Amino acid sequence: MASIFSKIVEGSIPCHKVAEDDKHLAFLDIQPVSLGHVLVIPKKETDYIFDLSEMELNELMAFSRKVAIRLKKAVPCKRIAVSVIGLEVPHAHVHLIPINQMDDCNFSRPKLKLSQDQLATVAEKINQIS
Amino acid sequence: MASIFSKIVEGSIPCHKVAEDDKHLAFLDIQPVSLGHVLVIPKKETDYIFDLSEMELNELMAFSRKVAIRLKKAVPCKRIAVSVIGLEVPHAHVHLIPINQMDDCNFSRPKLKLSQDQLATVAEKINQIS
Repeated sequence: MASIFSKIVEGSIPCHKVAEDDKHLAFLDIQPVSLGHVLVIPKKETDYIFDLSEMELNELMAFSRKVAIRLKKAVPCKRIAVSVIGLEVPHAHVHLIPINQMDDCNFSRPKLKLSQDQLATVAEKINQIS
Repeated sequence: MASIFSKIVEGSIPCHKVAEDDKHLAFLDIQPVSLGHVLVIPKKETDYIFDLSEMELNELMAFSRKVAIRLKKAVPCKRIAVSVIGLEVPHAHVHLIPINQMDDCNFSRPKLKLSQDQLATVAEKINQIS
């Protein structure tokens, strides 16, 4: 069965997209740990990040780096933190999380509750950065 | 002033090394979030991960991938999680954390207390994997 992320890639589930190329997609996490929390995925479905080949991982990280640089300009923060956990959805994904303190990327704390309109506004801000 | 990680690279502060090449070093975190928690650093001191060039980031991730594959063979776990926070030490570093559940990579929970001997045993296990 296609992962929820593959359904987002196909377009059968909508997302707040912030970047795309032929092999990758970046969109807002709908249960953000902090404001501007982005997920970056390879379009090809691979469960575990370290099952990606060296080249696939490099391409994913190079794409994530470009998104992170834009994200930091769009969302005021000290850093963009990176997290790959991989127990939630069986499709490798990189969390890019704007942080000002350690706890801003703590997945165990309650998630932000943002409406679709609020998420759309965040995505728009990021998409204004070229 | 040289970061604590640069002092580890120079050898003026000891570490439990698990991998090294000309540009990178991997060693055990002495305040592990979970057993087998490894730090991977570029030897060249750069504060923020996304200030690394695309090539430097690729080299760091390719090196981290090789360490993660060995680490998973040495330390029983479901996944090796990846985390880059960057607020602790001003020298970019990738956390590789063996996990079985989400909370195993929660930096807000109390760290494991391991003696130098216990850390040496963990490093030895990882170093046995080629």
